[in-house]
Amino acid sequence: MPLRETCCSVCDFILEYDTPRIVLIKNKKVGLINRLVQLVILSYIIGWVLIWRKGYQDFDSIVSSVIIKVKGVAFVNSSGFGERLWDSADYIIPPEQESSFFVMTNLIRTENQTQGHCPEVSLHKCIIEVSLYKYTNACGVLTGKCVTFNEGVKTCEVLAWCPLESQTVFPNPALLGGAENFTVLIKNNIRFPQFNFSKRNILPNISASYLKTCVFNRTKEPYCPIFRLGDIVRETGDKFQELALQGGVIGILIKWNCNLDRSASECVPQYTFQRLDNRNVDETVSPGYNFRYAKYYENSAGKETRTLIKAYGIRFEVEVFGKAGKFNIIPTMISIGSGIALLGMGTVLCDMIILHLLKKRNYYKEKKYKYVEDYERVSP
Amino acid sequence: MPLRETCCSVCDFILEYDTPRIVLIKNKKVGLINRLVQLVILSYIIGWVLIWRKGYQDFDSIVSSVIIKVKGVAFVNSSGFGERLWDSADYIIPPEQESSFFVMTNLIRTENQTQGHCPEVSLHKCIIEVSLYKYTNACGVLTGKCVTFNEGVKTCEVLAWCPLESQTVFPNPALLGGAENFTVLIKNNIRFPQFNFSKRNILPNISASYLKTCVFNRTKEPYCPIFRLGDIVRETGDKFQELALQGGVIGILIKWNCNLDRSASECVPQYTFQRLDNRNVDETVSPGYNFRYAKYYENSAGKETRTLIKAYGIRFEVEVFGKAGKFNIIPTMISIGSGIALLGMGTVLCDMIILHLLKKRNYYKEKKYKYVEDYERVSP
Amino acid sequence: MPLRETCCSVCDFILEYDTPRIVLIKNKKVGLINRLVQLVILSYIIGWVLIWRKGYQDFDSIVSSVIIKVKGVAFVNSSGFGERLWDSADYIIPPEQESSFFVMTNLIRTENQTQGHCPEVSLHKCIIEVSLYKYTNACGVLTGKCVTFNEGVKTCEVLAWCPLESQTVFPNPALLGGAENFTVLIKNNIRFPQFNFSKRNILPNISASYLKTCVFNRTKEPYCPIFRLGDIVRETGDKFQELALQGGVIGILIKWNCNLDRSASECVPQYTFQRLDNRNVDETVSPGYNFRYAKYYENSAGKETRTLIKAYGIRFEVEVFGKAGKFNIIPTMISIGSGIALLGMGTVLCDMIILHLLKKRNYYKEKKYKYVEDYERVSP
Repeated sequence: MPLRETCCSVCDFILEYDTPRIVLIKNKKVGLINRLVQLVILSYIIGWVLIWRKGYQDFDSIVSSVIIKVKGVAFVNSSGFGERLWDSADYIIPPEQESSFFVMTNLIRTENQTQGHCPEVSLHKCIIEVSLYKYTNACGVLTGKCVTFNEGVKTCEVLAWCPLESQTVFPNPALLGGAENFTVLIKNNIRFPQFNFSKRNILPNISASYLKTCVFNRTKEPYCPIFRLGDIVRETGDKFQELALQGGVIGILIKWNCNLDRSASECVPQYTFQRLDNRNVDETVSPGYNFRYAKYYENSAGKETRTLIKAYGIRFEVEVFGKAGKFNIIPTMISIGSGIALLGMGTVLCDMIILHLLKKRNYYKEKKYKYVEDYERVSP
Repeated sequence: MPLRETCCSVCDFILEYDTPRIVLIKNKKVGLINRLVQLVILSYIIGWVLIWRKGYQDFDSIVSSVIIKVKGVAFVNSSGFGERLWDSADYIIPPEQESSFFVMTNLIRTENQTQGHCPEVSLHKCIIEVSLYKYTNACGVLTGKCVTFNEGVKTCEVLAWCPLESQTVFPNPALLGGAENFTVLIKNNIRFPQFNFSKRNILPNISASYLKTCVFNRTKEPYCPIFRLGDIVRETGDKFQELALQGGVIGILIKWNCNLDRSASECVPQYTFQRLDNRNVDETVSPGYNFRYAKYYENSAGKETRTLIKAYGIRFEVEVFGKAGKFNIIPTMISIGSGIALLGMGTVLCDMIILHLLKKRNYYKEKKYKYVEDYERVSP
Repeated sequence: MPLRETCCSVCDFILEYDTPRIVLIKNKKVGLINRLVQLVILSYIIGWVLIWRKGYQDFDSIVSSVIIKVKGVAFVNSSGFGERLWDSADYIIPPEQESSFFVMTNLIRTENQTQGHCPEVSLHKCIIEVSLYKYTNACGVLTGKCVTFNEGVKTCEVLAWCPLESQTVFPNPALLGGAENFTVLIKNNIRFPQFNFSKRNILPNISASYLKTCVFNRTKEPYCPIFRLGDIVRETGDKFQELALQGGVIGILIKWNCNLDRSASECVPQYTFQRLDNRNVDETVSPGYNFRYAKYYENSAGKETRTLIKAYGIRFEVEVFGKAGKFNIIPTMISIGSGIALLGMGTVLCDMIILHLLKKRNYYKEKKYKYVEDYERVSP
């Protein structure tokens, strides 16, 4: 032994193996508790970490692109418009957005506005502010005069786009209620860069002829990428004709959860629809969804005129999310490793019971612990 | 004992309990170090993991939708425009975007452009390239002729939208400087899907009448969802009238950090504003934020004319972020478990001290280790 | 000893140190296995956790803003258009978007459309549906009459924007094929809020004069933020003139992976380009990328007319991603701690071998375990 020590203590260190000395206690109560705790931890590791959370897989997040195409025409025959047909170039505003689209379903139109002076429509519509540049939601700038609006009513004169928007209530029923039957084709290409896996929501087994006629249906046609707007709204729990009046925001969520250890054909999109804005109709501060835009003309005199449109409608936001998992040795090792570390917790728990709660605790303490006095105290 | 062994070794295994044999060393120095290390680790676990990082909670990320509505009119009286009023349909371009909006604050307008031939405005504005299709920032295609631009100055003739944009400097002060007083209503609905919790930034205790008059103020009205553009810019540290000249990009950040173990009424939005582009004014490559767009007309002769507008302005980007936490037994267990595993590190550290640094190391080594020779060496 | 126990058991507890009793086995085979396993785990911790995954760093995710400016003009001389020049106000639709832009490369124009009655162009273009409001991709609403389309051909009459879009195939070669030479300046400001670090893709050493002339080139000019559209498309593996025909979606990915422990000047952007939509040309359901929009006019009679444009083009989506890492003591401690916990796994593995697989297992078992009988059995 002294020889070995001097000649090759490194070899010695390398070739020896240290393992904790274990006290094996034969006590039914504590034994059972110990095994029970271990069982709970083991089932947590296997059930939750490995099977449910797929702890043996490496994950990658999704990269996605969305192309949207709305089809359909709406025929309007109202007193204000006469017979008029609206197609996608008319009701999609702006014509192109990255992953959302706005479909106009109702509108208030004020034609032939020019810059000029005119009486305010009502005191309620434009809040009067005395100073010109005070922040205000007035329709224009007050000139300080008081002019006749109509018989017997005088209102403040404003410098504004005249005539002012006079209609204060949206048409009911919605002018473009026919939008319920519009369809939207959503083309969604996804990629999981880490696994070099890409797919699109037009699945390989979908034929071109099928795509010309199909409409998404949760039970019958769950993989058809063409959606009827009315169906989307119905699934959110709203009624299209009610929503069309004031507008709103609806999310089209596409979820791709792919287990790439299985066949690629099992990696398919799941569509869900959600109302994203506040549904509450008794909300008084600009409920629904609307905005104003204008078409500008030049009249024969060369003066700029515009048609102001207050557009009510539904904004659809397409959101793609999901992740892909694939077996990888490193996360597997880490999951198992942290599981084994957790198994140690069972010992800690049982030690507490055996050393502090049991009647025979002093006996067990003696067995578990080896008391070592300090050197000085012992050596003399 | 032999009987038990033969009859039921499985029962035996189940009912026995193994715990490491511990050497208890009574040494003030090492004991103190050990306890200190354990104290540090314990306070790390309790302070950092459990309290600060809320290791006892499960977290969910936010799902959000934003509706934006800008109000206000700007009155412009300049030599170029005459008296003109700009309302939101005029200065919001494009009229609808998902979660950002652009407010035009300054502009250069070139009216009555038609396709034709005209002289270049200056050599500096359009870089001359000899070949027609070489990439270039020229205003048009060179015809090869040299024509009179104005008295004594000849420039190259181009095929372009004529007349060319001639103004090279933006108006100062900004034409739509009145935008400082515009207000924007931001309606933000959020959801934490995992906890089935949703809320909006118009808090339940906010009345409709309050919303008609309030303006956000960090100290006095921190929950009013209506913001004055001038206030937003001031909080970023910029001056509105300076920013309005050349434009810029500003972020409106809405942060929802919700502890759902507490009352839902404590889950409120926090607004912060940030300049997102480069503030540096001596930047020479297209500083600020601007883009060109055109309004198209048909003149009486049926020819297409357009008004080209170089719009300077502020793009506001609304970004919603945050997370919600709620007590959950699984992350709690994991936090505590990994904490206990860390406690083991204290032992490793003290072992190093006691076995390698202390004078009495050989004595302690003897106590800690039980040397077991290889079987062959011992048995004979 | 009894005195100490009674007087100050708390002091006692504080000043004592418990460490597991270790059995040191001198067996070459097991020792070697043990050391090998430890070596693997150690190299995993140092190599993977610390060096590769930078386990000693705290990470922050990126906050970014993007400003895009497209330059270039395209000259078109076709039978349908005559000589016409397109500039950025013409071909960028809509003029402003948050972090993407659309460049029109090809178009089908239908001029002077007014609301009226006209014959359908062909049975194939507008699918006939008997009921007016059935969802359909018809061009208009069927009046029920059958009228002469051209000599010998009768089609259904529709109420629509007349005349209908008649051209069914996109122009070949693409009208705005000159877009290949357009350039785009991408200004990207990034921030890592946690580390209070901000930078932009116009690096500090880039001069204004350099920026006026440079064009991105992966090998020669990797930090020039001005990109030629043709170069972007070429790097994705497509041919610009082919892509320009039908349009597509291309991602411009900007990656910032910054190690803030090193010099800030090493934190530079990396540009990559990717085709995001499906490249497959034999796709029959609206391949490529196109949308319709309209320019509205008022003719001399005051009637609304419009020019319908089916715009084919390339949508470029700028995506900024990345993260920054900086040394922090807490993640370092956690990485090392979990590494030491993993080292324990080596012991578990070797225990299995030594106690169950070796011939001398019973000898080692006796040495490792101390059997403690239950109290009752022993005491009497």
